[in-house]
Amino acid sequence: MNYEVFETKERILADNERAAREISEMLREKGAFFINLMASPGAGKTTTLERLIELLKDKFRIGVMEADADGETDAARVEAAGARAIQLHTGGLCHMDADMTKRGLERLGTDGLDLIFLENVGNLVCPAEFDTGADLKLMILSVPEGDDKPLKYPLMFTVSDALIVNKLDTLPVFDFDMEALCERVSKLNPDMPVFPVSAKTGEGFEALAAYVERRAGK
Amino acid sequence: MNYEVFETKERILADNERAAREISEMLREKGAFFINLMASPGAGKTTTLERLIELLKDKFRIGVMEADADGETDAARVEAAGARAIQLHTGGLCHMDADMTKRGLERLGTDGLDLIFLENVGNLVCPAEFDTGADLKLMILSVPEGDDKPLKYPLMFTVSDALIVNKLDTLPVFDFDMEALCERVSKLNPDMPVFPVSAKTGEGFEALAAYVERRAGK
Repeated sequence: MNYEVFETKERILADNERAAREISEMLREKGAFFINLMASPGAGKTTTLERLIELLKDKFRIGVMEADADGETDAARVEAAGARAIQLHTGGLCHMDADMTKRGLERLGTDGLDLIFLENVGNLVCPAEFDTGADLKLMILSVPEGDDKPLKYPLMFTVSDALIVNKLDTLPVFDFDMEALCERVSKLNPDMPVFPVSAKTGEGFEALAAYVERRAGK
Repeated sequence: MNYEVFETKERILADNERAAREISEMLREKGAFFINLMASPGAGKTTTLERLIELLKDKFRIGVMEADADGETDAARVEAAGARAIQLHTGGLCHMDADMTKRGLERLGTDGLDLIFLENVGNLVCPAEFDTGADLKLMILSVPEGDDKPLKYPLMFTVSDALIVNKLDTLPVFDFDMEALCERVSKLNPDMPVFPVSAKTGEGFEALAAYVERRAGK
């Protein structure tokens, strides 16, 4: 077997970092805690948000930016769950960068909010590279995607602060080794807490909501 | 609910298109048929390839380029199934472009091959934008990802020639409406054939292999 590595230059991310810092400072002044939620397509980002909003809406005034390459159904769902919500289209782009996040926040309106979620574009690669100024980066891996994903998408597991393992209710039908996953994760990110949940049944969400609450400082 | 669309300019893809045409001409001269396989992370690209190689290896001399942001296990798997294989790393990039594909083909060596697969980086967004000079674009959607994906990632469903719906064995545990999926797909790509399969059990692979065989002209 041949083996070839294409090393490509890191894109210049300086402009993005500057915009991300501006977002971070702006939101700190306003007292709003900002969470960037990232995952593959279909991992359950919106359903996870619906569950978290239900559990947290009495303690936080919550805003959500739903970013998608296209489509317009997710914002309505989280709005129904009790959050202020807007839908963002990236026009086919594979991630949200800090500049687009800033424009999204302006459109959402941050006044009166103390917890803001960005549901990033479904993608395990690009969103990991672009800081959006979030205070906390959450990622979801769903059981059907497989326990080998840290080996293939290491950056996402490295930059995220916590890992949500969703679709726990489907464990019986997949060859998914939770122990192997946790071992792979801890090699990349030793301090990363793992929250196994089922957004379908609600299992595991109390621990996850408590973690978010603690991190958001309430 | 507010609603905002970020229209961003299409990236200049002219250089990529030129390189893609060169690949296409080069492989036509050599008599090799080239397939670009795209899907989300964990949709079952490698297992699908293993199944196809088993069914096609007596009729075709098969080569596979396994592209990943990182990791090195997939090439060994398809090699064991009976293909010439190399592993490509994109250095964190979210897709293979035509230039990287060209370098991969040079490294793989196309002499003596008549069917070549590129397993693209797991991603439903970026690979759709970059032509790799392939004669046929196959995409996989897996049942756990959900039947709504054509609404959110329309470009991938538009540019692909055929849709493989994998993990059919998990239908009983997911709210997945195959009819709704097919309806959404046909709005984007009316001529797109859909192949429901289970790479785990092998179900549906004879029809898929026959399609590949027919398209590859044998």
